[in-house]
Amino acid sequence: MEGVDYLAPERNNAQFDVDEMKIVWAGSREAFEVSDRIARLVASDPNFRKDDRTTLGRKELFKNTLRKAAYAWKRIIELRLNEEEAKRLRSFIDQPAFTDLHWGMFVPAIKGQGTDEQQEKWLPLAYKMQIIGCYAQTELGHGSNVQGLETTATFDPQTDEFVIHSPTLTSCKWWPGGLGKISTHGVIYARLITDGKDHGVHGFIVQLRSLDDHLPLPGITVGDIGMKFGNAAYNTMDNGVLRFDHVRIPRNQMLMRVSQVTREGKYVQSNVPRQLVYGTMVFVRQTIVSDASTALSRAVCIATRYSAVRRQFGSHNGSPETQVINYKTQQARLFPLLASAYAFRFVGEWLKWLYMDVTKRLEAKDFSTLPEAHACTAGLKSLTTSATADGIEECRKLCGGHGYLCSSGLPELFAVYVPACTYEGDNIVLLLQVARHLMKTVSQLGSGKMPVGTTAYMGRAEHLMQCRSDVKQAKDWLRPNVVLEAFEARAFRMSVACAKNLTKFSSPEEGFQELSADLVEAAVAHCQLIVVSKFIEKLQQDIPGKGVKQQLEILCSVYALFLLHKHHGDFLSTGCITPTQASLANEQLRSLYSQVRPNAIALVDAFNYTDHYLGSVLGRYDGNVYPKLYEEAWKDPLNDSVVPDGYHEYVRPMLKQQLRNARL
Amino acid sequence: MEGVDYLAPERNNAQFDVDEMKIVWAGSREAFEVSDRIARLVASDPNFRKDDRTTLGRKELFKNTLRKAAYAWKRIIELRLNEEEAKRLRSFIDQPAFTDLHWGMFVPAIKGQGTDEQQEKWLPLAYKMQIIGCYAQTELGHGSNVQGLETTATFDPQTDEFVIHSPTLTSCKWWPGGLGKISTHGVIYARLITDGKDHGVHGFIVQLRSLDDHLPLPGITVGDIGMKFGNAAYNTMDNGVLRFDHVRIPRNQMLMRVSQVTREGKYVQSNVPRQLVYGTMVFVRQTIVSDASTALSRAVCIATRYSAVRRQFGSHNGSPETQVINYKTQQARLFPLLASAYAFRFVGEWLKWLYMDVTKRLEAKDFSTLPEAHACTAGLKSLTTSATADGIEECRKLCGGHGYLCSSGLPELFAVYVPACTYEGDNIVLLLQVARHLMKTVSQLGSGKMPVGTTAYMGRAEHLMQCRSDVKQAKDWLRPNVVLEAFEARAFRMSVACAKNLTKFSSPEEGFQELSADLVEAAVAHCQLIVVSKFIEKLQQDIPGKGVKQQLEILCSVYALFLLHKHHGDFLSTGCITPTQASLANEQLRSLYSQVRPNAIALVDAFNYTDHYLGSVLGRYDGNVYPKLYEEAWKDPLNDSVVPDGYHEYVRPMLKQQLRNARL
Repeated sequence: MEGVDYLAPERNNAQFDVDEMKIVWAGSREAFEVSDRIARLVASDPNFRKDDRTTLGRKELFKNTLRKAAYAWKRIIELRLNEEEAKRLRSFIDQPAFTDLHWGMFVPAIKGQGTDEQQEKWLPLAYKMQIIGCYAQTELGHGSNVQGLETTATFDPQTDEFVIHSPTLTSCKWWPGGLGKISTHGVIYARLITDGKDHGVHGFIVQLRSLDDHLPLPGITVGDIGMKFGNAAYNTMDNGVLRFDHVRIPRNQMLMRVSQVTREGKYVQSNVPRQLVYGTMVFVRQTIVSDASTALSRAVCIATRYSAVRRQFGSHNGSPETQVINYKTQQARLFPLLASAYAFRFVGEWLKWLYMDVTKRLEAKDFSTLPEAHACTAGLKSLTTSATADGIEECRKLCGGHGYLCSSGLPELFAVYVPACTYEGDNIVLLLQVARHLMKTVSQLGSGKMPVGTTAYMGRAEHLMQCRSDVKQAKDWLRPNVVLEAFEARAFRMSVACAKNLTKFSSPEEGFQELSADLVEAAVAHCQLIVVSKFIEKLQQDIPGKGVKQQLEILCSVYALFLLHKHHGDFLSTGCITPTQASLANEQLRSLYSQVRPNAIALVDAFNYTDHYLGSVLGRYDGNVYPKLYEEAWKDPLNDSVVPDGYHEYVRPMLKQQLRNARL
Repeated sequence: MEGVDYLAPERNNAQFDVDEMKIVWAGSREAFEVSDRIARLVASDPNFRKDDRTTLGRKELFKNTLRKAAYAWKRIIELRLNEEEAKRLRSFIDQPAFTDLHWGMFVPAIKGQGTDEQQEKWLPLAYKMQIIGCYAQTELGHGSNVQGLETTATFDPQTDEFVIHSPTLTSCKWWPGGLGKISTHGVIYARLITDGKDHGVHGFIVQLRSLDDHLPLPGITVGDIGMKFGNAAYNTMDNGVLRFDHVRIPRNQMLMRVSQVTREGKYVQSNVPRQLVYGTMVFVRQTIVSDASTALSRAVCIATRYSAVRRQFGSHNGSPETQVINYKTQQARLFPLLASAYAFRFVGEWLKWLYMDVTKRLEAKDFSTLPEAHACTAGLKSLTTSATADGIEECRKLCGGHGYLCSSGLPELFAVYVPACTYEGDNIVLLLQVARHLMKTVSQLGSGKMPVGTTAYMGRAEHLMQCRSDVKQAKDWLRPNVVLEAFEARAFRMSVACAKNLTKFSSPEEGFQELSADLVEAAVAHCQLIVVSKFIEKLQQDIPGKGVKQQLEILCSVYALFLLHKHHGDFLSTGCITPTQASLANEQLRSLYSQVRPNAIALVDAFNYTDHYLGSVLGRYDGNVYPKLYEEAWKDPLNDSVVPDGYHEYVRPMLKQQLRNARL
């Protein structure tokens, strides 16, 4: 029955223009067109096949990555793809590779931290891939605490060189992607030491391997750190370990845009503001938030489609069983994730604007909004990645047993995604940074200094401490202002409560340590408010297309009321709402699920993912799940022979009671 | 520095007798001794090495399982291990295998559902492994809804045989472990059809493969269903697909203990009560709860030890950095999981008693407690497996980036564990069963029928609807009765609220569907109460050993107050406690974490896991993590050569700008 669309009845039920929603999801018509074109390019090219990936051993898998990376680069050149198109191509190939780090971290590090001369020297080489670079910051003993890194870069004035060295085992570089087997160069972070003085951590360009024979240069020990979570997942990547034994590099390979070491060994600051580093962090984390919406929406797309295909229970007199998507328990778990995917999309879009705003201000030496922007992106990175990791696993469970098969695509999606909770700032550490910013903001409220950006609501302190929700009926919860005020009051009161409790301790630092679990909760409340408020702001824009805005309004309410229900303890204990109002919110939420139901399939179609990109039999566009699942099974290497390898040595002797003499 | 115990200072700080705690954890001195002896036996035998497992391709991995299974069986015979010892041996080998299903499902199915003659015929063959069996219930299209299975077993009176057939693609058996490549026989569930009449699902013993050459018998198509979540994990197991094309078996291979088909084709019930099936379910789920405590405790052991080894931030003037276990955010995530592991252990122990009690009653044809026991085990299965799956992943995140490495042991532990949330009853479906039982119990309260077992508290309806917590200071929350009453009142009021809301619908079934998300929450509240109350009951026993009982009291309070904090919305919205009391509970919880801290390492030592069983570099007993992590990395196949396979074909042409002519 090839070619039949089993989900057509679902698609016909949709109450909005799905093509217009695709534009909204992509961000613009242009973005949609690029994305759509490149996705199809990848999907239609058998060189990018990935359905065999989970059965490969480590070496084969890695070789498969190298082949795809080379082929992709060849295509990029042949088709003269621009930077944006090339980036899309790499992302649709959907296989982590050393090129991600080369383009995503090595090149930006040189751009951001290199002087003009350094950029002129190194960037052309990197742009042509005549060198391949990685970004080596974390060490065996240090991740979160960057200032604690142990690798040293000691200036030798006699030779005008830096000596890069790993003084301890724990100082080995550990984790950098692309480092293990491929990178020829790296941006290496090390403590700069001149004349016996430690100037803290700085970046250096270090060649790691010979460009002739790829062997590590003298003094360099480098290798792969071994298997990671998941079948293929990040095992396609050569995360590496690197140990330096007094490796010498010329002085001009220290990245010197912000601070420099002179020929005499003097450490001097340039006139470029250090705050630029934070600008880069805002950029990277903004990207992570966008990626969260992509990952979550893929999982949601798979789970939603399969929930419409799968039937279980509820047959009466031989009628078909009930589609599982019709069960309220399924809806109550799935639809909030669908709404979250959209919510994260829009907050990610807003973060792009924030990054541009911050950049403009930095160029004008206006640092006033930077702390708030930094806290806000840190918090959103934490919130969205945690919710996405949990959400993918929830989607897997929503597919029942079959979600556990690799052919569902979900195990790999989870295993590839979860490191986002740890890299670029551990999610809990980031929330504590947000909390610090909130405590500072609260403490300055009396001083006349007005809070800015996403903390601006705290300026209405008096109102937020006193207000009580005026919700009387379930539908009152559909009013954006009602929702917003409840979230603002909850977030503010939780911050204020923490600030009050902090004063009970002899030192603020002791209090901060002791109350850190509460502070994390206050930070979460603040970040949830940001996502809710940016969704609401989005809906104040003009959004064309039949029914599109209405659907988004429903999803916005689902997102907010789901959070309100999940955290109703916060709202109740701070007195923002009453138990009756909480219960009305839950009632409204239930009725919203019924409104999402007929549109669910079209809402995930709007993500515009190809079957290749989804990589899931359960999430197939046409819903033809079971025959394909059956077909897929037979491809496993174990099915190469009817009688498995090992039967004669191990199974037959057992069955024939001849184990005693068997050689095992 | 081999032989140094880096965690010795931690162990010296413990305030209780860890050897006595080991006995408490194991359940008895005898259980401890068996477990300890068999664990060491496995750990010391290089044939059971498992550190290379995650790098193997599928075929090698499966062959490795076959070898271990045969070797284990050989050792079981040589050492004349009894059933309990053999079971332990298999569990310490820690590699899912067809033998798990043979012993855990095939043999018990024949024991439970076979007549005496059937048992006499088949069990001796199975006991000697002259046949290897699996348990084939689930199909491609049906898991949760067992009554919807499609495989048919049609009686042919002419030949006195059943014809087993798969009438549709979705009726293929799908998932049974051991089925794919190894099992010679299976207990197959199929719809019994006699004379055109469908009698519903029954079990049949069917031979699948020839005992001579292991080829599938005529009419049987059988294979492996392909890769599953995780690197090795359940990929060591041949979960199978099976399709029948009119396969004939003798009539006496229907499992006929409860119902029979006569020579004439008449369907008759025996005098054995059908309720026996529920007894088996209680048994299986009781085992799952025990396994939950084992899996969670392994993860907690790894995360706790590594949290004491790992240091990050907090260095002052060159002092060592702070052990991450000292951070309150780490404690607030880790210690509740430690407490949960103990809580699940004790509720599992109690379930063993419950199973024996149910069995005794069934033998005496007393079915009065069965519905309650059935609901209670279903609920506890759901609660403990969900909490354990989430808990393992949380432990992985608590180990920072290194938790993502397979050498941490945590990715595999997670991937192996998560199916427990789906098999033997999907966790949400089970909670809905609990909710049904609760609604029935509430509806009968007026009728004079007293609720029994774990629902007995509902008999105090009036009190529980009115009571208000009298907590005035944080330490009041340490009183077991105070905690118990709060949990009882919360659970009862949530059930009552659901029952009230149900009456608003035109039919109870419609109401049940519509309110199912709320019903699930009420069921969770009830199940949490059971775990808390059984922990408290355990502490009413005499528990010897210096400080042992005190530690358990602390853990019991941590478990209860953690739940109370997590679900404070439930407690507040039902008016069981006030916001101030909730905040006092949180304060008390924080202070309990400080009491757990010095005992944390000893509390995980009490699980008595060998380094082999833990399979984690991060969780090593001696805490010597970093050198071993470094060593482990070099074992990856990618490090077999300095220049990786594929460099010459794919990387060099890229670096040398010769891709255009490269063959990719």
